[in-house]
Amino acid sequence: MKKHRLAVYASHSAIQILLGAQEEGLPTTLFGPSDALRLYARFPSINSRIIEYKGPECLNVLKNEGHILIPSGSIVEYVGYDAIKKSGIPYFGLSELIKWESEWDLKIRLLESAGIPIPKTFKDPSSINTTVIVKLPGAKGGKGFFITDDPLIIKEKLAELLAMGKINSVDEVCIQEYLIGVTMYAHYFQSPMFDRLEITGFDIRYETNVDGLKRLPSLFAKNISPSFTVCGNIPVYPRERLLETFIQYGERFVEATRKLIPPGIIGPFSLECVINEELEPIVFEFSGRIVAGTNIYLLGSPYLKLYWGVDMSVGRRIAKEIKIAEETNRLEEIVT
Amino acid sequence: MKKHRLAVYASHSAIQILLGAQEEGLPTTLFGPSDALRLYARFPSINSRIIEYKGPECLNVLKNEGHILIPSGSIVEYVGYDAIKKSGIPYFGLSELIKWESEWDLKIRLLESAGIPIPKTFKDPSSINTTVIVKLPGAKGGKGFFITDDPLIIKEKLAELLAMGKINSVDEVCIQEYLIGVTMYAHYFQSPMFDRLEITGFDIRYETNVDGLKRLPSLFAKNISPSFTVCGNIPVYPRERLLETFIQYGERFVEATRKLIPPGIIGPFSLECVINEELEPIVFEFSGRIVAGTNIYLLGSPYLKLYWGVDMSVGRRIAKEIKIAEETNRLEEIVT
Amino acid sequence: MKKHRLAVYASHSAIQILLGAQEEGLPTTLFGPSDALRLYARFPSINSRIIEYKGPECLNVLKNEGHILIPSGSIVEYVGYDAIKKSGIPYFGLSELIKWESEWDLKIRLLESAGIPIPKTFKDPSSINTTVIVKLPGAKGGKGFFITDDPLIIKEKLAELLAMGKINSVDEVCIQEYLIGVTMYAHYFQSPMFDRLEITGFDIRYETNVDGLKRLPSLFAKNISPSFTVCGNIPVYPRERLLETFIQYGERFVEATRKLIPPGIIGPFSLECVINEELEPIVFEFSGRIVAGTNIYLLGSPYLKLYWGVDMSVGRRIAKEIKIAEETNRLEEIVT
Repeated sequence: MKKHRLAVYASHSAIQILLGAQEEGLPTTLFGPSDALRLYARFPSINSRIIEYKGPECLNVLKNEGHILIPSGSIVEYVGYDAIKKSGIPYFGLSELIKWESEWDLKIRLLESAGIPIPKTFKDPSSINTTVIVKLPGAKGGKGFFITDDPLIIKEKLAELLAMGKINSVDEVCIQEYLIGVTMYAHYFQSPMFDRLEITGFDIRYETNVDGLKRLPSLFAKNISPSFTVCGNIPVYPRERLLETFIQYGERFVEATRKLIPPGIIGPFSLECVINEELEPIVFEFSGRIVAGTNIYLLGSPYLKLYWGVDMSVGRRIAKEIKIAEETNRLEEIVT
Repeated sequence: MKKHRLAVYASHSAIQILLGAQEEGLPTTLFGPSDALRLYARFPSINSRIIEYKGPECLNVLKNEGHILIPSGSIVEYVGYDAIKKSGIPYFGLSELIKWESEWDLKIRLLESAGIPIPKTFKDPSSINTTVIVKLPGAKGGKGFFITDDPLIIKEKLAELLAMGKINSVDEVCIQEYLIGVTMYAHYFQSPMFDRLEITGFDIRYETNVDGLKRLPSLFAKNISPSFTVCGNIPVYPRERLLETFIQYGERFVEATRKLIPPGIIGPFSLECVINEELEPIVFEFSGRIVAGTNIYLLGSPYLKLYWGVDMSVGRRIAKEIKIAEETNRLEEIVT
Repeated sequence: MKKHRLAVYASHSAIQILLGAQEEGLPTTLFGPSDALRLYARFPSINSRIIEYKGPECLNVLKNEGHILIPSGSIVEYVGYDAIKKSGIPYFGLSELIKWESEWDLKIRLLESAGIPIPKTFKDPSSINTTVIVKLPGAKGGKGFFITDDPLIIKEKLAELLAMGKINSVDEVCIQEYLIGVTMYAHYFQSPMFDRLEITGFDIRYETNVDGLKRLPSLFAKNISPSFTVCGNIPVYPRERLLETFIQYGERFVEATRKLIPPGIIGPFSLECVINEELEPIVFEFSGRIVAGTNIYLLGSPYLKLYWGVDMSVGRRIAKEIKIAEETNRLEEIVT
């Protein structure tokens, strides 16, 4: 049987996916704009074929060569859902989930269906009665988000975004209760091969400028608005009693995707939480693919070791799922 | 010689203790309420016998089967010192220390005897002349602690707690100088088998909501009281010159326990510090057993490697001490 | 051919250097004041010869015995550049860089030559038009730095420092724009043996009291000045897209040292950055030797694994470079 090659976009979490595939013996092709490829050529441990991405026709070539596409947030942003679907390249995971993630209404509907605690959202700025965070569309790492408790500020900002053409409708913006507590991002892997959900780790996002502002005395910080652009991830280990809660949230989320977007989510995803004073995680967002927070486990996640007995990155976990699916002729269960 | 089995309560740091015992070849029994057991059954790497804890008589059964109890903060909270002592199950560590930890007066007396820097404490709210943190009794992870510089607020709060029956006496509450600096939690292992103190690691506690509040502009945060409920731990590596200071603090603490609570502390413990501007750690509290902060080393502590040459969790270190004690017929030196 | 022995000063990052040398099969001598040596004798995994440092003549002895000196921030501070040069002991790295680091003017000139983004600096306190951080001379881990936007406060403070003899001239102090964003410290290794720059990791400094103050409600924190004394390091993993930016900054920095201080930097160094809202790292300082932030990788840096395929600390990387230089008779390319 012919082995598939994994197609990996040159950004986001490509290093761990390439190395993980190598560990599992699967060949890879890295593709991306030429200036993004330089990085990967620097590392002697990475033995991947590398090609330049010059446009959507590249996906057709990759498809014809027998690739499976491993998605990441970057590929959604830079290549786009339509180009991926049009090419017909096998997509590891539930490709339709991309659409659910790109619209706040669908995103929140999915979380609500899962029956897990989520923050209040407000359709009408006038109805806000608490401090809120206003979130713009797109997976651009928190850029442009802002905090306020003033309906007028929101209305002005929405008008401005409309005028600048940054949004087409106010529905593209999400006005969400600002949760009081600490952030924690839980990473998962839903395995069709083993019919189980594996918890793969946790991180805290390191966001500029908000995580720097807090070091500045309030006297100097007061006129600077916090911004939420993710620039890195910090390891965190939740209390052991929280693990079961996180796993159950994940299972409910998987179940909700099965009902609303059959056959349901496949592979890595993340639930993005604030843990409140009562030690209850509240899920304010999700990511339907591998998150950059898993990069903290380049040398292996201790949580994946609980399932596999060896050090394993999420990148390697992806490769392992594909390898087993190939070996057992079950590839159709993990690509869409 | 019959090998003992380790009895591990299903919470807190059970994963590393179970895995560590497996690595050392010691059999384990995990016990806990049925809803806490689910988590551990999820992980194929954990090969422990698992039984439900239905009440204190469970400890008698464990004892009769030849178990040694490995304590954690959770067992103290959910099973309790009296039930443990009544059962007569061999307890790894210095069980009497539990009593010293449960009362602020004893706790502070022990730290004072160690001759290590500690913050001022105030018996009488009227006498406070600085910002203080008011700490409630019990090992509930910082829940209910509050910061103030106003004696009236403390008096009101104490009256309220008494009225609600949450405390029986104001002596159960500790009014401690709020130290200016950064927190760092040092983990230790006192080994009777090698007659030495090993430093096993360091963490920073991740506390809700206080570590989240700092991301909120003071304009919105000002009416929200910080809370200190621990929800996870973050790795930190102190400057190398601080290591000797931390080790000496640990040795003095061990010495104090030998004098006040012979034969003195056995196995893992923690000194909870704030490091001030002069790079001096001030110890504001201790834990007389394994702390959850050691969970950051599921794959092995780099500090334990300095003693053992291999990656080793604190859970495995516990198992190793017991194994050596069994093999050399010195078990009575490590259980009480 | 006679193997050289590595001379390592007992502080800062000595543990990883000693262990790394052992892994590469190079003998070591640890030297330092007697009270600093105790720590290293505690760890059975460290098999180094240990001698007391009683004064500069110790360097002559080390030289005559065939040692190569492995510098760290501590040796610069406690032994000093002049004593090192006078002894003539082979110095791993570019010793002349020490002078460039000790003077703000030279330091900034080097960064400017590299053509990487840096913050504004102000010669004249009167000219400041933004919030600034005022930095005192020396590598004392941020001690004495302060933030202000008031020229008068700076003038008063400078006068006070002059009067106390803590500085000899206002030129010893750096008045730097306070950058809004988050800190990230990038670690590098410039290898003459492979003629390449390796990125070895990233950390966030954990500074007292500034990283603790942010946990204190502004009501209580407002009268306390933040201080910036480094007491530890926290792991952070930047977004993958930032890696190439960091590497290019490093390459430009190496190039600038080649032009201004031939033959240019050798071995480990660090660029100390703030990442702003536009995800652009701004370099506010550098360290021309191994930084303590690399201590987070005692068990091995995942970034070095990308080059070497095995877990490797920066200490081991140093030993590897020396070993290869010895084996190929190219030692003169890495010592100055």
